[in-house]
Amino acid sequence: MFQLHPQLAQDCEVLCDWPLSRVLLMRDANYPWLILVPRRVDKREIYELSEADQAQLLRESSRLAQGMAARFGADKMNIAALGNMVPQLHLHHIARFRTDPAWPKPVWGQVPAKPYTDDELAARRLALAPLLDAGL
Amino acid sequence: MFQLHPQLAQDCEVLCDWPLSRVLLMRDANYPWLILVPRRVDKREIYELSEADQAQLLRESSRLAQGMAARFGADKMNIAALGNMVPQLHLHHIARFRTDPAWPKPVWGQVPAKPYTDDELAARRLALAPLLDAGL
Repeated sequence: MFQLHPQLAQDCEVLCDWPLSRVLLMRDANYPWLILVPRRVDKREIYELSEADQAQLLRESSRLAQGMAARFGADKMNIAALGNMVPQLHLHHIARFRTDPAWPKPVWGQVPAKPYTDDELAARRLALAPLLDAGL
Repeated sequence: MFQLHPQLAQDCEVLCDWPLSRVLLMRDANYPWLILVPRRVDKREIYELSEADQAQLLRESSRLAQGMAARFGADKMNIAALGNMVPQLHLHHIARFRTDPAWPKPVWGQVPAKPYTDDELAARRLALAPLLDAGL
């Protein structure tokens, strides 16, 4: 049975489940940063998913990226499947801005994660709700 | 008409064209590092491609990632669409090893690119040939 990896559970807020993926918000207020985790067991690489699941992951990823870009007015979306440390397949979606603290570098290893305040977290959830609730 | 971005042309060797993407080898011998560039004009994000092109990019990406993992015995594949600096859609595929100089961090900004010698480059091309020539 699918279980979210403990490291992802520790680093993220769970937002909702889409048909394939659990949708997470990274606890780093520096960037709007969401993660898709396909609810499948023992998958580390995208190519290990069935073709149908790969196609669904692509649909969910493109929908999320397009929705985040529009919602936050991002200058660029960064999408990445890395997983060197967390061995559960997960796909980062980060809205990037010319004014963000890591621009133009990739976010990893640049600046420490900035915790959300309760108000900021509530506002972020509110901003994301229409995107997350819409049908897939 | 599609033209490879000058920065990608400068940083990479062109290996071949697949049905959608130009296949590039990053000139960094630290890692087997290939890049797919869909031969489409004015695309920055995956979701800007047509649905058919998105599906084809996924096929090419999964085939490349699986082939590289097998060919090089990678511990993990890293796949990323970043593009903060080069505004032409391109998808990184990097074979990672517990012994590589950036492990377990993402490769960007860790160690300077290590030029290939002519012999190393020829060997890399030879190792990739069966993967690149196989039908898609």
